[in-house]
Amino acid sequence: MLTLRPEVLSGFGLFGGLFEFKGYQHPILVSSVDGVGTKLKIASALGRHDTIGIDLVNHCVNDILTCGAEPLFFLDYIAMGKLVPEQIEAIAQGLAQACRDVGCALIGGETAEMPGLYADEDYDLAGFIVGVVEKDKLITGKTITAGDAILGLPSSGLHTNGYSLVRKIFNTTQFKKRYAGLGRTLGEALLEPHRCYFNQLKSRRHLIKGMAHITGGGLVDNVPRILPQGVTAQFHGNSWTIPPLFQLIQQKGNIDRDEMYRVFNMGIGMVLICSPENVDQLAAALPEAKVIGEVVKLAGKARVIIK
Amino acid sequence: MLTLRPEVLSGFGLFGGLFEFKGYQHPILVSSVDGVGTKLKIASALGRHDTIGIDLVNHCVNDILTCGAEPLFFLDYIAMGKLVPEQIEAIAQGLAQACRDVGCALIGGETAEMPGLYADEDYDLAGFIVGVVEKDKLITGKTITAGDAILGLPSSGLHTNGYSLVRKIFNTTQFKKRYAGLGRTLGEALLEPHRCYFNQLKSRRHLIKGMAHITGGGLVDNVPRILPQGVTAQFHGNSWTIPPLFQLIQQKGNIDRDEMYRVFNMGIGMVLICSPENVDQLAAALPEAKVIGEVVKLAGKARVIIK
Repeated sequence: MLTLRPEVLSGFGLFGGLFEFKGYQHPILVSSVDGVGTKLKIASALGRHDTIGIDLVNHCVNDILTCGAEPLFFLDYIAMGKLVPEQIEAIAQGLAQACRDVGCALIGGETAEMPGLYADEDYDLAGFIVGVVEKDKLITGKTITAGDAILGLPSSGLHTNGYSLVRKIFNTTQFKKRYAGLGRTLGEALLEPHRCYFNQLKSRRHLIKGMAHITGGGLVDNVPRILPQGVTAQFHGNSWTIPPLFQLIQQKGNIDRDEMYRVFNMGIGMVLICSPENVDQLAAALPEAKVIGEVVKLAGKARVIIK
Repeated sequence: MLTLRPEVLSGFGLFGGLFEFKGYQHPILVSSVDGVGTKLKIASALGRHDTIGIDLVNHCVNDILTCGAEPLFFLDYIAMGKLVPEQIEAIAQGLAQACRDVGCALIGGETAEMPGLYADEDYDLAGFIVGVVEKDKLITGKTITAGDAILGLPSSGLHTNGYSLVRKIFNTTQFKKRYAGLGRTLGEALLEPHRCYFNQLKSRRHLIKGMAHITGGGLVDNVPRILPQGVTAQFHGNSWTIPPLFQLIQQKGNIDRDEMYRVFNMGIGMVLICSPENVDQLAAALPEAKVIGEVVKLAGKARVIIK
């Protein structure tokens, strides 16, 4: 058990993690639970288990960041067929590093050996996070209106979605292959950790009306979650370059464009919606951010249009 | 998503569960994460999935109760090979019922379909709880001294521990059999939900110095977690009746007494330690509670002695 924040009370209370909560005026606790899906199978195929914990923490941190929350503490659940100490250690190392990077306490966890449910070397990994935001700083998207700008922040790869489809297209031998544009093996590109947006966005939260974390369902399913009634998010598909990894998957899997946008993040890991007058300030602070669309009045049924 | 408490802010924030936190002076957040182990396999063998969620919530609630905390909100993680809607619905029903019973909000969850990691019908289930206790009401066990009384509250069965061993001793056909003393089939007795102690203990927390939730490791491993240095918990093994289910397991599995006490709760689900002058008041309020031992000065190395 790690105590990375002064609020963590350690030395007793081993049945539960203790966190002294103080210093807030009107706090809203924001929580989320996530897994990393079958990206685990890629980690196993490559025999590398020190990044999957990073994926999990970053996924959770990004989720609560969309509400404007800063992470407070995290707990993990690891279940496996047979306990392999080096494997657990590598996973825990990734979890700890990612927590440290955002000042989040790793306050507890459960490691369960479940023969008969998991094959020997297999494991599953889930994470739970609690963060906090002052009520008047809560980001909900409800003030979004037609005319607002949509900015995108680049993803580092597939993040944690689309791996079941990827595993239907490529086999383990192909993971070791180097394809054009990747600059490394396919497996390495697939295992690239889910990027965390907290540190670059934390001091810019006041400029943002709505934030969507692009996970399973892509832009198409995730952006509508923060849109109020009566508006549509209109993206300009040519305003950013689809990274080579997604192009490779589409080509080798012979997948149509619509399915690609529904399954994968297509190079955009986080979407920010702000009023037009804040675009310059946000863009200056976030050199990688690109204007990739705008909010328009709803015409028809589509909440998301990708031109 | 269910909103069982007024503090839950619903209608937005779908990337995270929102809980408005107010009304506490010096709050300590107490959190825990748990699974239900291979009790899942018993549920599958019997084709009954509406109680396993109760096990999970009650396990979590009991864990944070040992610190004196009341539950605030809960999140679940369900991962499976293939999504079976009726199965998910039954699990969710159990989770919701157990949350409702203790006034806990079921604020979020993740359901992951992971073909290739889980066999089609298999699933795993993990839960995460956050509760709160005022700092001056925190129960830590640190004031426990020689002479204190140890009370036990009965378990309802195996709770969520020892199922891997049970599955080595009995096969699926035997689960359908009725053995003497169980009053039902073995499978039904094994599936009996983990009992929750919150409602009966919540108004008696001020009388208790330390509480141990008897999970994996039994009395032997769990009670020392709350004992300060220099004392031993001495149990009188004949002060309570070992329920028939444990006797049956011991006999059919030919398991020695020490291992039984290390793997199973042996009929005691929660241990309370209090000063001698509070015993009568606690016993009067908790008719099922029995004095099952006392705290003595440490003599030798054993932190737990079962006579």
